[in-house]
Amino acid sequence: MPPSDDSVAGGRLRDLHDDECRALLLAHRIGRIAWNDAEQGPVVLPVSYRLVGELVLVRTSAHTELARHFTAGRVAFQIDDFDELGRTGWSVLVRGFARAADWDQVPSPADMPTPVVRGVRDFHIRISVERITGRLILPA
Amino acid sequence: MPPSDDSVAGGRLRDLHDDECRALLLAHRIGRIAWNDAEQGPVVLPVSYRLVGELVLVRTSAHTELARHFTAGRVAFQIDDFDELGRTGWSVLVRGFARAADWDQVPSPADMPTPVVRGVRDFHIRISVERITGRLILPA
Repeated sequence: MPPSDDSVAGGRLRDLHDDECRALLLAHRIGRIAWNDAEQGPVVLPVSYRLVGELVLVRTSAHTELARHFTAGRVAFQIDDFDELGRTGWSVLVRGFARAADWDQVPSPADMPTPVVRGVRDFHIRISVERITGRLILPA
Repeated sequence: MPPSDDSVAGGRLRDLHDDECRALLLAHRIGRIAWNDAEQGPVVLPVSYRLVGELVLVRTSAHTELARHFTAGRVAFQIDDFDELGRTGWSVLVRGFARAADWDQVPSPADMPTPVVRGVRDFHIRISVERITGRLILPA
């Protein structure tokens, strides 16, 4: 028999507004890109990023799995932060279309994400934002 | 012209061994599940989980997007932790096959993940681990 829900220590949930999601995206620098690899199925990898207008710019080394397997297509981009003990936190999910970015499509260096990992050369992806949603988890 | 790689502040990367990946999976309780929604494309959502043998057990409210849209299939499950300032961190990626878990497939309550969000009822997913990989990012 399933445990009673009264025994569950969980928090309350509320949706984040669009401006709250964007503020969180602007305030952070490391997120996760998820795509559906034709052979391997869904894959999630951490990346450096920056939100610039309606684009999420992602920077990675050309030697990463992301760069080697990348093909243009739909992706999810996600950031979150949780307190595992306090059981509070938030998450923001961006749905969009990703394509490799040419140099002339990348903004000035000040707007470019710093890569998490030093690479011999860089690989940029631009994600056109289609939809942003977010959730806030408050203490129970 | 692209910036010189010498100007890039990034860390060094090494693969995590299987036992290191499993130790991290055992030590944490909140991760992210990614799947390819037939209509919406890739989706990533935070979930409570527990690693039990060769299964990642995921628990969520039946009212979440995950529960509403879930169909059995290939998924990625991911945990990570990064220091955005120190540019160090790690990530572990599990590839596997997910299916809804019946109550008789769920282990005793002590082995069950505590949900992040209190729900009226629970929805469990079991992910059969097919492959675990991980990366450690060390200071440059």
